[in-house]
Amino acid sequence: MQESTQHVVVIGAGFGGMAAVKRLIAKRTSNMKITLIDQKNHHLFQPLLYQVATAGLSPAEIAAPIRSVIHAGSDQVNVLMDRVLDVNTGDRVITLKSSAPVRYDVLLVAAGATHSYFGHDNWEEFAPGLKTLEHATEIRRRILQAFETAESTDDQELRRALLTFVIVGGGPTGVELAGSIAEISRQSLAEDFSRIDPSSTRIILIEAGDRILVSLSEALSRRAARDLEKLGVTVWTSMRVTDISAEGVKLGGEQVRAKTVLWAAGVKPSPIAAMLNGETDKAGRVFIDEFLRVKGSPNIFAIGDNAHFEDPKYGILPGLAPVANQQGRRVADNIVALLNGKTMKSFRYMDKGEMATIGRRRAVGSFKGLQFTGLVAWLVWMVVHIYYLVGFRNKLFVFLQWISSYVFFKRGARIITSRNWRGDE
Amino acid sequence: MQESTQHVVVIGAGFGGMAAVKRLIAKRTSNMKITLIDQKNHHLFQPLLYQVATAGLSPAEIAAPIRSVIHAGSDQVNVLMDRVLDVNTGDRVITLKSSAPVRYDVLLVAAGATHSYFGHDNWEEFAPGLKTLEHATEIRRRILQAFETAESTDDQELRRALLTFVIVGGGPTGVELAGSIAEISRQSLAEDFSRIDPSSTRIILIEAGDRILVSLSEALSRRAARDLEKLGVTVWTSMRVTDISAEGVKLGGEQVRAKTVLWAAGVKPSPIAAMLNGETDKAGRVFIDEFLRVKGSPNIFAIGDNAHFEDPKYGILPGLAPVANQQGRRVADNIVALLNGKTMKSFRYMDKGEMATIGRRRAVGSFKGLQFTGLVAWLVWMVVHIYYLVGFRNKLFVFLQWISSYVFFKRGARIITSRNWRGDE
Repeated sequence: MQESTQHVVVIGAGFGGMAAVKRLIAKRTSNMKITLIDQKNHHLFQPLLYQVATAGLSPAEIAAPIRSVIHAGSDQVNVLMDRVLDVNTGDRVITLKSSAPVRYDVLLVAAGATHSYFGHDNWEEFAPGLKTLEHATEIRRRILQAFETAESTDDQELRRALLTFVIVGGGPTGVELAGSIAEISRQSLAEDFSRIDPSSTRIILIEAGDRILVSLSEALSRRAARDLEKLGVTVWTSMRVTDISAEGVKLGGEQVRAKTVLWAAGVKPSPIAAMLNGETDKAGRVFIDEFLRVKGSPNIFAIGDNAHFEDPKYGILPGLAPVANQQGRRVADNIVALLNGKTMKSFRYMDKGEMATIGRRRAVGSFKGLQFTGLVAWLVWMVVHIYYLVGFRNKLFVFLQWISSYVFFKRGARIITSRNWRGDE
Repeated sequence: MQESTQHVVVIGAGFGGMAAVKRLIAKRTSNMKITLIDQKNHHLFQPLLYQVATAGLSPAEIAAPIRSVIHAGSDQVNVLMDRVLDVNTGDRVITLKSSAPVRYDVLLVAAGATHSYFGHDNWEEFAPGLKTLEHATEIRRRILQAFETAESTDDQELRRALLTFVIVGGGPTGVELAGSIAEISRQSLAEDFSRIDPSSTRIILIEAGDRILVSLSEALSRRAARDLEKLGVTVWTSMRVTDISAEGVKLGGEQVRAKTVLWAAGVKPSPIAAMLNGETDKAGRVFIDEFLRVKGSPNIFAIGDNAHFEDPKYGILPGLAPVANQQGRRVADNIVALLNGKTMKSFRYMDKGEMATIGRRRAVGSFKGLQFTGLVAWLVWMVVHIYYLVGFRNKLFVFLQWISSYVFFKRGARIITSRNWRGDE
């Protein structure tokens, strides 16, 4: 590589992109300039997003301003809040929505994933997914508003539909949403209404496969289903949703009337993965080599949800935070090596286990062959999530919200805000 | 009054309505049923709303769920989240947007105020006011986004307009907004950008009268102006805004180019005040008698921003939280007296003084002829606001946010969220 300044551009400030940029800053040499591009001004701690959606935490408590985290005010590091429209791999130029085009020498794509409705994009209006803070506050609005409207209506059939919540998808997000809604209805809201009984709420978790939490063992998935049922969640497996509308969901011929339907069933990688001139798999992820480099491109790397990586030990790696984190650190080392003519190293995944929380004092998880359930798993879950949360202030506030929820059974963010800032919608 | 159950309906869960309902619940007799109607599900602590607008606090930290505060799940107390469309004082019936009509025996109107653009409603899009959480997050979005867009643009003239903030109105809200924006630009964001210097931001506070904070003494208002100038705010008095557009504000022939304009210049009472079949003043407030009862109506009361009350000592009372609070408690006593055939008591205002905070370690205030400035006033301001904030959890979190901001110069809620939940706007 030349001696002149090399421009490393990172797209995406999720787990992978942030890990990479932090490491690049720590290891950067004077011949390197770094630009981080993200559509948002904040890094989002997605594993706790369901708690924002269910009024337990406030948006700012799980979000950290990108500029603040990486101390962006230096000549060598640049942050752009903008949307990537196109990547021209021939000219090495990224076209942005608002800013001037950006030229790169080395590109890292860590742009994450969005929901996939498997071709039914019209379902989104009736069944929002959970990927951003905006989604979370919209879901919170729908859940809390359903109880309010149920209280004020005299129409018994409508009331029943308002007090029926359907969650589509039995992965960790679906399980956590269902468990939290059960807790809201059975505990937080139980005493607060005079005409309805929130604890009579129906919560239905629908999974197309034959069991929930399929990435965990069968024993843990059975335990999770039992724990959910105890909380008041009805778990339906091997059931496929065939339509979603304002009236609820259809399962073949059967119609379940529900005014609140949430989508936790599928994700697809950012379209940026397909702009890299590399081969993609059926899910839309670009194939990368052992150095996390897009196959066939000497100067483009991809990680996390955007990348198809086959680990010798674990097979194709799933879209999990630890994968993105570990790849982010390794890719930063490899970029520094590449720019300085050193040898890059292969990436190997270190399995950190997997967890899902089900409610107050209940979780399931596995780590290196060990399985955790119940209170122990729940405590481990809390410690791990506080530990990985970015920023001292966020750690403190989330910890205090949890303590206070545990003691008082209340939700810290039980507010309904309009979709429209003028407040008329 | 009859022995049968009497229905007391309260419209509005602001300071006045909440104070009244809490007192009504405490003093209620078995012949009384209470319904509280509000458009929102939360009581809002408006005095700290400017801190949400300037990314210091999260929405949930200054909002308390109405049902949770008044423990709504009893047969005698009912909460409806709905919008009042009409009050028929002849039939004693309230028409609501979603719920069935509500019949009242006694009505209390405490519906608060909205902005007034003095006939220029088209200015709202370019200069939002600050009355709801939605307004606050929209203003936060505009402020933070202006710095982001200024960083990414290469157009020098546009950049200057993006780094110019105009606040129209020199009352407490205008002063507090201007001071906070100055602090954000000079402190919180100062080190976080590479292409712009946030501390070069222009902040202009425009007041039509000849001094800011006109309800305080001339000495305090001079001190406040000096403190603001020290923080970097330009204060223009005796200047009248003649037009507001996407380009900025016009003051007669002069155009000030600014991409962010905020409105803190005028309020008007809720239109419900005009539905009560009572005489209203020029501002739209309904005239009430010494018992806080709408003149000419034996069973309708009005308080706070909706009411024109002439105090023997202080004259026409302004739209302040202490006025609404005190009237709320008195009106509850009078309603209980009325329903039980007892004598009602006249309302007399107890002046609690007035304050405005200007920034870190700076505030002005007066109480019973004493005047406070600087650090002392700022400490008093903090204690008073924490004390009056509803809910233990909110007090704790706001206190911790302030401590942490004071120590780290950071803002706890520096996130930009889209206006649209899909995130595409």
